[in-house]
Amino acid sequence: MKIYGDTKSGNCLKVKWVCDKLALPYSWVDIDTLSARPAPCSFSSSTARGRLPTVELDDGRALAESNAIIRYLARGSDLIPIDAFAAAKMDEWLFWEQYSHEPYVAVCRFQMAYLGKPASDLDPDKVKRGYAALARMEHQLASTRFLVGDIISLADVSLLAYTRLAHEGGFHLDGYAAVRRWIGETEKSLGLPPAR
Amino acid sequence: MKIYGDTKSGNCLKVKWVCDKLALPYSWVDIDTLSARPAPCSFSSSTARGRLPTVELDDGRALAESNAIIRYLARGSDLIPIDAFAAAKMDEWLFWEQYSHEPYVAVCRFQMAYLGKPASDLDPDKVKRGYAALARMEHQLASTRFLVGDIISLADVSLLAYTRLAHEGGFHLDGYAAVRRWIGETEKSLGLPPAR
Repeated sequence: MKIYGDTKSGNCLKVKWVCDKLALPYSWVDIDTLSARPAPCSFSSSTARGRLPTVELDDGRALAESNAIIRYLARGSDLIPIDAFAAAKMDEWLFWEQYSHEPYVAVCRFQMAYLGKPASDLDPDKVKRGYAALARMEHQLASTRFLVGDIISLADVSLLAYTRLAHEGGFHLDGYAAVRRWIGETEKSLGLPPAR
Repeated sequence: MKIYGDTKSGNCLKVKWVCDKLALPYSWVDIDTLSARPAPCSFSSSTARGRLPTVELDDGRALAESNAIIRYLARGSDLIPIDAFAAAKMDEWLFWEQYSHEPYVAVCRFQMAYLGKPASDLDPDKVKRGYAALARMEHQLASTRFLVGDIISLADVSLLAYTRLAHEGGFHLDGYAAVRRWIGETEKSLGLPPAR
């Protein structure tokens, strides 16, 4: 299996982390989205139509959308709860991540870290919604160890991607003790060095 | 089971359609999000924290995020492909719907149909991205009957919600013959009257 990804992108790293955690073999094809260098033909012409991340299975079939990819790769593993309702709560977090967290926390981080925008020039509405997302996580993590109960799941992998880099988008986690505790525990569980 | 929903919202209607298609019993608790009338206490205090749609199971547990809800309610049914890769392609569409379709097609429709904004005042970037989403669907539906092959799945239910109402957001489907054909087939399969 090939993973087409950019290591600057949390969405891409989610896929790498799941493969590493589950010891799934893969080769990483690095696509630098900020570079003028053209992407390899095998990627541009794939059925995923140039979206990142994309995985290409050994038989050539392609799958895009980070959370759909990790849900597929982790099927049958401990990263997806066996209980149907717990799995549904995991899905709730996965959809919420793409709709209510990533468009604010990740976008602010991209604008500051890669486009060089100062924090004072960020869209105040995006900043406000980013903090609202962090507050929702804090509310949950104040009462459970991970996002879906006491065992790590794909919800944690997915939300970790940009939450651990929130400071690069100008977000201060000082008032989010449970989120900070959870970042450390999730990084450790995935064998990652601390992001800061 | 209770469904807390607003019938003006495609995200809420997805849940109703899946229940109706699968003959799952429910009571619909209508929440008018544009009205000043307060929502019922049972909803505001639920663990889903006031998000729409939310389903509340008979034992009181709550689940939010439209696509997570329909994925849970339809588990084990014909609306989710048995083949793991086909189910993953369905998930790819579900995540794509929330990230790359709903924020443009549904938001333009909300602004025109409910806030009274004329088409000429819509954000041109949102309109452009809405058409890009429709073009991606057209590309797929020109070669398959439904979004994941020849059988209806949750991908179709989810994408139907706002695609059938795209005209209310100023989108013209004249150049999207496959999308128009698919809207009709999916509406028929779900027992819905044509949206226009």
